[in-house]
Amino acid sequence: MTRGEVKGTFFVALKAIKAGPRNEDGIAVVKALLAARFAERFQTGEAIRAQHANTTTYIPAQLPDAVVFLESAAEVREIVAIASEHRVPLIPFGAGSSLEGHVNAPYGGISVDMTRMNRVLAVNAEDLDCTVEPGVTREELNVYLRDTGLFFPIDPGANASIGGMTSTRASGTNAVRYGTMKENVLAVTAVVAGGREIRTAHRARKSSAGYDLTRLFVGAEGTLGIITSITLRLQGIPEVISGGVCPFPTIADACNAVILTIQSGIPVARIEFLDALQMKACNAYSGLHYEETPTLFLEFHGNAESVELQSRHFAEIASEFGSTGFIWTTNPEERAQLWKARHNAYWAQKSLMPGRAILATDVCVPISRLADCVAATHEDIAAHGLIAPIVGHAGDGNFHVGLLFDDKDAADVARAEAFVERLNARALSMDGTCTGEHGIGQGKMPFLAAELGDAVDLMRQIKHSLDPDNIFNPGKIFA
Amino acid sequence: MTRGEVKGTFFVALKAIKAGPRNEDGIAVVKALLAARFAERFQTGEAIRAQHANTTTYIPAQLPDAVVFLESAAEVREIVAIASEHRVPLIPFGAGSSLEGHVNAPYGGISVDMTRMNRVLAVNAEDLDCTVEPGVTREELNVYLRDTGLFFPIDPGANASIGGMTSTRASGTNAVRYGTMKENVLAVTAVVAGGREIRTAHRARKSSAGYDLTRLFVGAEGTLGIITSITLRLQGIPEVISGGVCPFPTIADACNAVILTIQSGIPVARIEFLDALQMKACNAYSGLHYEETPTLFLEFHGNAESVELQSRHFAEIASEFGSTGFIWTTNPEERAQLWKARHNAYWAQKSLMPGRAILATDVCVPISRLADCVAATHEDIAAHGLIAPIVGHAGDGNFHVGLLFDDKDAADVARAEAFVERLNARALSMDGTCTGEHGIGQGKMPFLAAELGDAVDLMRQIKHSLDPDNIFNPGKIFA
Repeated sequence: MTRGEVKGTFFVALKAIKAGPRNEDGIAVVKALLAARFAERFQTGEAIRAQHANTTTYIPAQLPDAVVFLESAAEVREIVAIASEHRVPLIPFGAGSSLEGHVNAPYGGISVDMTRMNRVLAVNAEDLDCTVEPGVTREELNVYLRDTGLFFPIDPGANASIGGMTSTRASGTNAVRYGTMKENVLAVTAVVAGGREIRTAHRARKSSAGYDLTRLFVGAEGTLGIITSITLRLQGIPEVISGGVCPFPTIADACNAVILTIQSGIPVARIEFLDALQMKACNAYSGLHYEETPTLFLEFHGNAESVELQSRHFAEIASEFGSTGFIWTTNPEERAQLWKARHNAYWAQKSLMPGRAILATDVCVPISRLADCVAATHEDIAAHGLIAPIVGHAGDGNFHVGLLFDDKDAADVARAEAFVERLNARALSMDGTCTGEHGIGQGKMPFLAAELGDAVDLMRQIKHSLDPDNIFNPGKIFA
Repeated sequence: MTRGEVKGTFFVALKAIKAGPRNEDGIAVVKALLAARFAERFQTGEAIRAQHANTTTYIPAQLPDAVVFLESAAEVREIVAIASEHRVPLIPFGAGSSLEGHVNAPYGGISVDMTRMNRVLAVNAEDLDCTVEPGVTREELNVYLRDTGLFFPIDPGANASIGGMTSTRASGTNAVRYGTMKENVLAVTAVVAGGREIRTAHRARKSSAGYDLTRLFVGAEGTLGIITSITLRLQGIPEVISGGVCPFPTIADACNAVILTIQSGIPVARIEFLDALQMKACNAYSGLHYEETPTLFLEFHGNAESVELQSRHFAEIASEFGSTGFIWTTNPEERAQLWKARHNAYWAQKSLMPGRAILATDVCVPISRLADCVAATHEDIAAHGLIAPIVGHAGDGNFHVGLLFDDKDAADVARAEAFVERLNARALSMDGTCTGEHGIGQGKMPFLAAELGDAVDLMRQIKHSLDPDNIFNPGKIFA
């Protein structure tokens, strides 16, 4: 298979995922054991099982056999020991905001709800780090941190759990400055096969001590063990934040401004791209009057002087690429107003065709290819008569297409899938990746193989060596 | 074993390392095959074998059976296939500047010299990335890049090869701003067991596509395969660089100034700590007249305005912690003069006791513990009558002790080893790591177990699954 070629079709792949082997005897035994042990914290009602298999996309839900709500690492050790003994799948569950079927239970098993493990275990302000349980959400963490003058920067949009963000290697709008979960997780503890709890690292900011197990758990999507705590890097809350909006004549102009901004070393905190259709949707939805052309939304962090410096430097770059309309402010209310369009992007998308579902998919390419990739995707959208605004984390070359489709209509679902397939093939052909931040889950499995070929065998070997009975979130990343 | 406790003694551990099983028949067959295949690029002379097992410390050399000089990825595939078939160890060799016995051949086998694989394969200036063969040194790369306006920032001191830096997860003086190899390697290609070449990722700046195999190879010390290319992030050469020197009354004052600098978000490019003894040595060696007190050496990158801003901001912090002597400059010659003491630190150390060997060891602790760890180490040095100046990458909590000792005197070697053991136990007890940037190799094996306990079993499982015949640099990281 050459790079960029996707084997079979996406739709076929999804069907194949559905036929997982179930260990019925083991599941029955484990259900009985957990019911006795966890009483009302063990639930088998259909509604709660369905809620724990909510895939937030058109990927069909595959319900777990039960849901258990855990409250401590000791309980995680206990349940992993039981599941290991009886070879029953465990599917960790955080906020349920993942997008590629990560919380589905294709082989049945137990959804392990981590939301009650939501304590902040330690904050070391001098070291700019903290340790949290996996069920803490990023908003909860930032509320907790407010008085320390620190914040946790990663913002994937949804109020995801830190455990889920770790497991999908999440990033979002300000990764361009602060990095992704990969750069911001210092260590995890996790319960691995058999029920032992291991620690991947301690709190030093860097280490060369053996294999990077921390990075192995970051992005493993719960397939190697259940994370029981995460040590995170924090940042000082900027003294001053400025926000700006800058329209461009063309996508290429906007992307070239992004490239030069990054190349010039301007430490831009956010640099988001919205295409003309997205701007039109935002204007309509929020009663705004922006130009309906490719637009960058920016944020700069620093003190009054440095933010001014960054903004002026960016303005020069923007004018080089044909923009005369850069406006920016350090006033918090005005900044919120400027950014309103970006913040409401999802709802604005929905309002384009009320009642339609949105398929939010992501790819990421080298930034030199971003303009080409977006332009080719626009042509594809037009050629197939689709409605699909584009929003991108431009500084990383990462963009999302919000494809509006009728999820009740098989033909429309098939069109959506075919579009996703072409989009991924396009990104791969441009030296990119099939997912910048959403993860593989079930939805992107065929593209992972197209992207990395034989390297996926190494992933399988690692999975098999660390989880020989395939109990941790089986049927994700690779079949 | 509780954290910080080191099992047995270091000396005993080193002896144990020496008794590796040798596959004599396989080695003989492979030697014959390689001699026929590579002619004069295959060498068995003792001098060249000894040069390829130069451990640069007191760790005894363990010579490979032969050295082969490879020139292409195809040749790497070929030799790995041969070694896999005959189960003979391969030890990749770059610049030979590693410090913990990484290039030793405890089980015999073939040293695979990568220095002729030194091509820069691609530079993508717009994406701030490049792809190089593993034998390129960091200085060669920066010379190559000069005309592009870009540079590769990681600077471990030695002119190490990019392959070696990748394999030891190297960092150095400017990791505080630009990160370590972990943050700066976008992808590698590597030949794995059996002779297949895999690619861990493509050129997108971020990806959530499956397990992070890139980070698994970064820091694997050649134990999982032989790296054939590395894709690196690059940075724009700063318009202006300012350098500064700042003496402090005490270690605690210097460290507190570092903490506040980091907390304030000043994007300092280098912030190096030299202790009083090191300053004394530098003055004597380079004919300088610095105060012989704990001193920070700083570098700021940016444009004229931002560098001025950073320097002024740091000066305020320094004065809060009792320093009135901060001097800085943007003039390149003056900056070189200011930094001369830091650049000559190693030679200045040597000049303290000419003829003695230097044991350069590294540990890393959370920055809040740096002052405590350095102070306790000073007490240890004084209590044992040792001579051991300290230089630290203070922004990362990483420091090096340059212990002067007589490597011909068994008693002095034993004293040095005992000191290293106490130093590592101290760092571990402070939530730190036994190595911030040198790697485990052979020298730090006992400390890795003390640091990560059961997690080392996961590393072994991964090693066994990816290298079942233990041919890639066996006897490193774990026995």
